[in-house]
Amino acid sequence: MNIPDTLAHRTAQVILTVRKSDGAPLANQNVTVTQRKHKFLFGNTAWEIIALANGGLKGEARAERINDRFFDLFNFATLPFYWGGFEPERGKPHTESIRKGAQAFVERGCVLKGHPLCWHTGTAPWLLDLSNAEILEAQIARIHRDVADFAGLIDMWDVINEAVIMPMFDKYDNGITRICKELGRIKTIRTMFNAARKTNPGAILLLNDFDVSSAFDILVEGCLEAGIKIDVIGIQSHMHQGYWGVEKTEWVLANFERFGLPIHFTETTIVSGDIMPAHIVDLNDFQVNEWPSTPEGEARQAEEIVTHYKTLLAHPLVEGITYWGMTDGGWLKAPGGFLTADGHPKPAYHALHDLVKGEWWLPPTTMTTDGEGKVQVTGFLGEYEVTCGEATAAFELESSGAAAVKVTLLR
Amino acid sequence: MNIPDTLAHRTAQVILTVRKSDGAPLANQNVTVTQRKHKFLFGNTAWEIIALANGGLKGEARAERINDRFFDLFNFATLPFYWGGFEPERGKPHTESIRKGAQAFVERGCVLKGHPLCWHTGTAPWLLDLSNAEILEAQIARIHRDVADFAGLIDMWDVINEAVIMPMFDKYDNGITRICKELGRIKTIRTMFNAARKTNPGAILLLNDFDVSSAFDILVEGCLEAGIKIDVIGIQSHMHQGYWGVEKTEWVLANFERFGLPIHFTETTIVSGDIMPAHIVDLNDFQVNEWPSTPEGEARQAEEIVTHYKTLLAHPLVEGITYWGMTDGGWLKAPGGFLTADGHPKPAYHALHDLVKGEWWLPPTTMTTDGEGKVQVTGFLGEYEVTCGEATAAFELESSGAAAVKVTLLR
Repeated sequence: MNIPDTLAHRTAQVILTVRKSDGAPLANQNVTVTQRKHKFLFGNTAWEIIALANGGLKGEARAERINDRFFDLFNFATLPFYWGGFEPERGKPHTESIRKGAQAFVERGCVLKGHPLCWHTGTAPWLLDLSNAEILEAQIARIHRDVADFAGLIDMWDVINEAVIMPMFDKYDNGITRICKELGRIKTIRTMFNAARKTNPGAILLLNDFDVSSAFDILVEGCLEAGIKIDVIGIQSHMHQGYWGVEKTEWVLANFERFGLPIHFTETTIVSGDIMPAHIVDLNDFQVNEWPSTPEGEARQAEEIVTHYKTLLAHPLVEGITYWGMTDGGWLKAPGGFLTADGHPKPAYHALHDLVKGEWWLPPTTMTTDGEGKVQVTGFLGEYEVTCGEATAAFELESSGAAAVKVTLLR
Repeated sequence: MNIPDTLAHRTAQVILTVRKSDGAPLANQNVTVTQRKHKFLFGNTAWEIIALANGGLKGEARAERINDRFFDLFNFATLPFYWGGFEPERGKPHTESIRKGAQAFVERGCVLKGHPLCWHTGTAPWLLDLSNAEILEAQIARIHRDVADFAGLIDMWDVINEAVIMPMFDKYDNGITRICKELGRIKTIRTMFNAARKTNPGAILLLNDFDVSSAFDILVEGCLEAGIKIDVIGIQSHMHQGYWGVEKTEWVLANFERFGLPIHFTETTIVSGDIMPAHIVDLNDFQVNEWPSTPEGEARQAEEIVTHYKTLLAHPLVEGITYWGMTDGGWLKAPGGFLTADGHPKPAYHALHDLVKGEWWLPPTTMTTDGEGKVQVTGFLGEYEVTCGEATAAFELESSGAAAVKVTLLR
């Protein structure tokens, strides 16, 4: 592998000692080392896979293509828990269909994150009939229930989404803005984090926001100073109004790196058509009949995605990137997918694949052990396999730098 | 007085019982009630008065005019403690000249505020030669020294100025940004507030910022949740790019009123000439050779100042407004004063005077006591005097609503 210095912290150099099943070194033999999985979380939404798992899109070629392309590139998925959609009628949550979807991802080795446990947008409309005390109680109960129901399948949650704007949100009345206005942001965050933590103490809990001004980093600081344990800072980056560029991306990272916490880019979109005008403040206000992808746009999107992923992986605190949507024509009809609306790969898909399963990936590589059964393996952090004939052993490159790993081949 | 409903909370209705020096009621007599002072803090900078007190502008008609106009309208002054100017050479602070200035204000009954104890802009340049630990130590020592030196004269401080931008400030390297970057905003604020509080436990301590986005209200929330006691929220409103208007002013107040803390508008400017273009982000970037005041601009400024003061006084949490500069041609050469550069009143001066010493002021008013020595006095909160011939007594309207006050006349 030819790894640039900027990504050295993503790789390990391991002296691998291969032993036969009887424990003796496998000396002077050819072995094949193959990467199986990235440690870095390459994510997407791909909710078509939930529909597939529930029989909804069965036999549809488009859905099958999305399914196959997803699993060939990604190892991480964000599943929808928007309260209004998840539990439109109080007491009748769509737990089972989401569970089937979650299982489909987990069977293919994906890590899952639930999104979101508390958000003002798209929250349950029936909250409006409750008092603030009852809304708060229902919100906490909802967290306890869903985090418990999915523990083991989903152990990572966007606990709160968009707390910066939450108490000021004025597009429409909703139960969550009501309680956030009353409690303030930090008490709201503390309450929701406590509820999630109590139910699943091992879960990874995120505070996620689209606001990348000082307001969000000051909110994170306020939460940490108030003793709230945030596991990961979640930063959205819907770039319908144009790719941020390296400078802005690094500026955003610099604002958050001082906390020393892991960072996820949780919702990334880069479009392959015209750019939404800069004067639009709430992206939802941009309503068009169609938003076509163009050949020039697709070339630009592919280039920008490569730059964006390289910039983010170069920062040691970034542990995951979730792209928002597999295909064109999703949210706002934007041409922001890796695949066409019909499920065929766009240049961006191939470009990212060339990194994730190309430049940053160790394909089956044959090497010869020395007299002590040793080979040197350099690769991206993740899961690996070494084989010799029919015998095989798994190993991991867990942390960057030099290390020694011993494996015993099993048939 | 004809007081609008919006200002009812600024007034009291008092049954005043007037007694003679022997304690008997002053029955059926004419008395004259006169307002002496507003409780509301009408402030300005007027640093010419410091120069006057130090003999610097002695005999200059312009300075004398500024002096007289100031004391005829204002009861509150903000004095400069910019570290770089106050202590250009380490260990040689300009304590005595500022003290003389402070005494001149206090002798005329003014409340004083020191500004600021900690700010990145204009801080001591010699901090750059120190380590971060030494800068922090020097900053804390500076607070202890200056707050102690002025206790009794100055018992109100802008402890931290512009903490929102402090760690990100990148115009030039400075010692305060260095330590704020290391400590974070909230720990920096806590450290400086603790130092000031420890030295003068009775002082009123402000957190002051020009940022009126969510970033500042989230910072205030973070400080309060972290247990920092902020006495007053200080909001700047330099409107060189045009008057905010009532809607924005009320929006800003609404963002901060949820904390229930007193609010000061600490630095207000409204210009009477052309408006600075909206694309300027840092007002300091707007450098012009001259910035003339115009007749239309002066009429507009007067109107806007009236609206702005009425809007702010209508909000019960606002306890003070400090206008930034007495005369035109100060900061940025802006025509933002109440007086011309030469010290003559502009329409804005007369307009504000008509409110503060007119509509909102009880001039000497003769009334007749009843058989029990009682009269009814309605007025703006503040200090009053009642006289009968040569005999006089002082009283205060301290809080809004109805009350009973008894005074004994003294010769």
